[in-house]
Amino acid sequence: MTERYTLTFQPGDVVVADVPRGESVLRAAMQADLHINASCGGSGSCGKCRIQIIAGEVESERSSKLDDDEWAEGIRLACRTRVLSDVEIFIPETSRMGNAAVLERELRGERKGRLLNPAELESLVTGWTLDPVVKKLCMQMTPPSEGDNLNDLARFKKALKDNFGLAKVSVDSVWIRNMPHVLREHDWQVTATVVDTSYGYKVIELESGSYCDRDFSVVMDIGTTTVWGQLLDLNQGTTLAQASRYNKQISYGDDVISRIVFSQKPNGRETLQQAIVDTINEIVDELVQKSGVEREQITHMVAAGNTTMTCMLVGIDPKYLRMAPYVPPADFIPPVRAVNLGAGIKVGRHVHVHTFPSVASYIGGDIVSGIVGSGIFDSEQITLYIDIGTNGEVVIGNREWLIATSCSAGPAFEGGGIKHGMRATDAAIETVRIDGVTYEPTLLTIGDTKPIGICGSGIIDAVAELLRAGVLSQNGKFDMSLPSPRLRETEGANEFVLVEAEFSGTGDDIVITEADVDNLVRAKAAIFAGIMTLLESVALDWADLEQIYVAGGFGKHLRIEQAQAIGLFPQVDMDKFTFVGNGSLLGARLVSFSKDMLKAAEQVARMMTNVDMSDNQMFMDRYVAAMFLPHTDMTYFPEMEATLAARAGRGR
Amino acid sequence: MTERYTLTFQPGDVVVADVPRGESVLRAAMQADLHINASCGGSGSCGKCRIQIIAGEVESERSSKLDDDEWAEGIRLACRTRVLSDVEIFIPETSRMGNAAVLERELRGERKGRLLNPAELESLVTGWTLDPVVKKLCMQMTPPSEGDNLNDLARFKKALKDNFGLAKVSVDSVWIRNMPHVLREHDWQVTATVVDTSYGYKVIELESGSYCDRDFSVVMDIGTTTVWGQLLDLNQGTTLAQASRYNKQISYGDDVISRIVFSQKPNGRETLQQAIVDTINEIVDELVQKSGVEREQITHMVAAGNTTMTCMLVGIDPKYLRMAPYVPPADFIPPVRAVNLGAGIKVGRHVHVHTFPSVASYIGGDIVSGIVGSGIFDSEQITLYIDIGTNGEVVIGNREWLIATSCSAGPAFEGGGIKHGMRATDAAIETVRIDGVTYEPTLLTIGDTKPIGICGSGIIDAVAELLRAGVLSQNGKFDMSLPSPRLRETEGANEFVLVEAEFSGTGDDIVITEADVDNLVRAKAAIFAGIMTLLESVALDWADLEQIYVAGGFGKHLRIEQAQAIGLFPQVDMDKFTFVGNGSLLGARLVSFSKDMLKAAEQVARMMTNVDMSDNQMFMDRYVAAMFLPHTDMTYFPEMEATLAARAGRGR
Repeated sequence: MTERYTLTFQPGDVVVADVPRGESVLRAAMQADLHINASCGGSGSCGKCRIQIIAGEVESERSSKLDDDEWAEGIRLACRTRVLSDVEIFIPETSRMGNAAVLERELRGERKGRLLNPAELESLVTGWTLDPVVKKLCMQMTPPSEGDNLNDLARFKKALKDNFGLAKVSVDSVWIRNMPHVLREHDWQVTATVVDTSYGYKVIELESGSYCDRDFSVVMDIGTTTVWGQLLDLNQGTTLAQASRYNKQISYGDDVISRIVFSQKPNGRETLQQAIVDTINEIVDELVQKSGVEREQITHMVAAGNTTMTCMLVGIDPKYLRMAPYVPPADFIPPVRAVNLGAGIKVGRHVHVHTFPSVASYIGGDIVSGIVGSGIFDSEQITLYIDIGTNGEVVIGNREWLIATSCSAGPAFEGGGIKHGMRATDAAIETVRIDGVTYEPTLLTIGDTKPIGICGSGIIDAVAELLRAGVLSQNGKFDMSLPSPRLRETEGANEFVLVEAEFSGTGDDIVITEADVDNLVRAKAAIFAGIMTLLESVALDWADLEQIYVAGGFGKHLRIEQAQAIGLFPQVDMDKFTFVGNGSLLGARLVSFSKDMLKAAEQVARMMTNVDMSDNQMFMDRYVAAMFLPHTDMTYFPEMEATLAARAGRGR
Repeated sequence: MTERYTLTFQPGDVVVADVPRGESVLRAAMQADLHINASCGGSGSCGKCRIQIIAGEVESERSSKLDDDEWAEGIRLACRTRVLSDVEIFIPETSRMGNAAVLERELRGERKGRLLNPAELESLVTGWTLDPVVKKLCMQMTPPSEGDNLNDLARFKKALKDNFGLAKVSVDSVWIRNMPHVLREHDWQVTATVVDTSYGYKVIELESGSYCDRDFSVVMDIGTTTVWGQLLDLNQGTTLAQASRYNKQISYGDDVISRIVFSQKPNGRETLQQAIVDTINEIVDELVQKSGVEREQITHMVAAGNTTMTCMLVGIDPKYLRMAPYVPPADFIPPVRAVNLGAGIKVGRHVHVHTFPSVASYIGGDIVSGIVGSGIFDSEQITLYIDIGTNGEVVIGNREWLIATSCSAGPAFEGGGIKHGMRATDAAIETVRIDGVTYEPTLLTIGDTKPIGICGSGIIDAVAELLRAGVLSQNGKFDMSLPSPRLRETEGANEFVLVEAEFSGTGDDIVITEADVDNLVRAKAAIFAGIMTLLESVALDWADLEQIYVAGGFGKHLRIEQAQAIGLFPQVDMDKFTFVGNGSLLGARLVSFSKDMLKAAEQVARMMTNVDMSDNQMFMDRYVAAMFLPHTDMTYFPEMEATLAARAGRGR
């Protein structure tokens, strides 16, 4: 575990606890809503984020922006200074934003929703026991003798029954073929790898000798954009390594629709299958390398993906997924051999891949997995589960009932359709604060480098901050009358300059346009309307939601209050929010550890009702009503209403 | 059906009924125990079998042995004359054997056991309905619509349930992959090929359109020496074609032991598997060609074979079959894909091969199949089933219980270990009569050609006749004092010349030696002792046997009274004997037609108890006692005892 420290900022004795060793002071301060000027995304090039170290140990780069005297006095750039102990820090007035920032901090406090660490995420679901659907069983068999000449196969099955209580065992034909040799090679000491199927146990691997102490699986979240994998220890119930790669299918289309179109070209389906198999192979390579586990000791794989990704992995024709009446090819796909997918996933030929059942064309196995991984399937609390990507999937329910929908949010939350939008990777602006007086932004980028664009959470932050600062009106238009050089008109369109060219990594200005704002509004309106429609379909209201789980890589950087400010999430108690990160991967992990969880996933898929939002008039009404910042009906957002009223009261 | 005629032989008004059109007069006469001289095996070269046609239509070759006058008088060679209507025939005195032949005929009468025609064989088992374990199901599915967007897979399963009542359906992954396309190609009209497994139904093939009217299977008896195949119409329950080939494994050893030895050499197992697959492919080629059925319309295969043959077909290591404690590798082998065997049986990739379960190393699926095919599994009558080949397998029981054993008979019944022995193919002597006065033989060969050797039934015939004629003593020695030039000593060993060089196809004499007789005696003693031991193990006697079924290609040419004469079979009522021919093939046929019969086969394998004759003192005692012609204890063979006593009384 990384050590964690407490920072104390002056003036004001503002304490920020639980800061991991090596975190930059700038980032720690912003997480605590302590604003320090910064224009260059934390790359050290603007020199605005001067701080003074009063006590404690830090490591810091010498900057050309600081002279020798300043350095001697402990002046540092907050963005280039990393904490190595508890530290006390003074923020000079020159580095502070206008007083609006303090007002905001008081107003917004520390309420951020539960951002869980990996151990907490893996403990979200309890009540399962380590009993994998695929497992190794070791046993010493009794050799045949004159008085006991039961045949090898029946003897083996009897041993499985006597030792482990397994009934209805079938044996993969390759092992029937080699059984006589394998059983005798190590004097009837054998290791059987067994999968529990709907029709009994199937022996998929048989080894001479005893190998039960090394038993591993690979679980994956097959995202349209990113594929995540984990290597699990099936004996210990632990995660040994994690890795991710972009889905190589991106070369053939950014979203599922364009990939389905590509799949209909000659060899399209095969090409796409091979692309995802290549991606998985790279991940498996990295997992094996990181963990030191031998590839041959991997006995099982689990893959969670949306309906299209699952189809493409297994090689199912996805053509009709995008054609009315939007009929998926399959719900429950039987486990497939990993080596049979495309040119083969590079694991043992006995390794099967379990996929998650899908519910509808746009409610896939990834959502089913998320409902399992987040524990909603077993919770009595009425829960809202939101997985925000190109499609925002929304689920409401608990252990008794589940309804789900998919909202065509568009790619804005992934940086798509945004002039300087980009995926949440290095050099993407992920955090934005706008001073309410000067309208000057403070920015942080992923990797603390010069910004080259803005990712989903950065866009939400920027729009929320511009709205709070009065730069942006509730109908998404810039107030061009404000005295800021950052507000300008370019080729007839209004825009706000977030980063000036001299501080950007591209050498050009990075801006947010009214068109960007409009795209974001459409995206958030679709999700909000989807939630509203689902709620109304079961006669519930916001207040009835006892938990709100936000899933997706997106969620990691997202701040609830900013999402509420733009009207993406309802304004309910922040304590109800939990960020579960990659919920699909959590579910895949559980399913590999516990066959009860596999059954739970099947049960979730069966009980989940899909509510189709296309041609749904209630949805259309809610959507139109949500096309405002945060909403046409401000009673949904009392806090934002107060904020905006306060700003108006302060003279504008 | 071939027309059948009645022949009347003069003098004596001997009527022979039920002679098929085209049968030779010589063969018809010998079947009725009417002896006509013939030394050349029915090849037309000795000219001894002169007859005169009195009335009726025949077709006959002109022979150089007959002059114009004789031809004009209706004199013909019986071996070269084929019946085309009811015929009256006069046998001149010159063509008749000595009077002993008449005596014999009166004594032996018409009692031959039931020799069933194909239709009768196929009707041995009743009470099953045509309900194949693999079948095609055609249906018109309801397309999805806005209000009914069930996914393709679930829709397909629902249609199978609604139309055919099928529950627990799984679908081969290749068809899940292509299902969206296949379902829609012919407007949701589909043909599913479904196999009924122990865990539910599995869809192994899915076609657009309707093809249920053409549905065929290939069933096989995989013999160590010969492989038989039939092509069946699964809709009609009929046999469309039959074909056979020598098992190409013969190149690697004549018997199962030598093949198991070969299998342990480098690539031995693969070589043997490919040899049988090549054999099967030739048979399938011929079946397809003969029947006009398209290869793609074959949906199922069934293979019955002994334990070693089954192992080698499936590719199982047979090594331990021949090593104590003689443990078979498997009892119930799950169906395997035909294309996965060796380089592949040339049928559709969906075609599965069902094999029969084995009971022990030397009681294999062929015997299980024979018990099903002959109807013993469903009979209340206590039945003895004998399948005579290299190993004589013997089963006793009924629907309630079954015990079985395998007797190491050796290859004598297949012509092995016999000086001029050969397999039952063209030019093999299959029928022998010895005149009790002149000791002259009358011979028939398979194919009515000049003899080149003698097959199993011919050897039994020859030994029985030599015994009856007093040429051979009960301890298997020739009476060299008899006045016959056919009895001679060559290189210190006594022998009987069956065919003189001038009438043989090899240009050499064909003889039977005392060593040949000894080998035959050992073989028949092993089987007789096996039957005795089994009977005694269940406290039964010969008289308790209500039916005796003789299986094997061997059985077709065998005459019960001759087998009884040498002591192979007990002397019980001939009406109890039935020749079932290839019982394994009959069973394989039933199993392909009816899944109830497949279950019956599994049940037979489970209930059959193997009695091991190695190290069995009771068996050894019975074996030694049977090393005599017909037996040391003549009370078992009262008829032969009387025959031999009568001969002794006639004074030699």
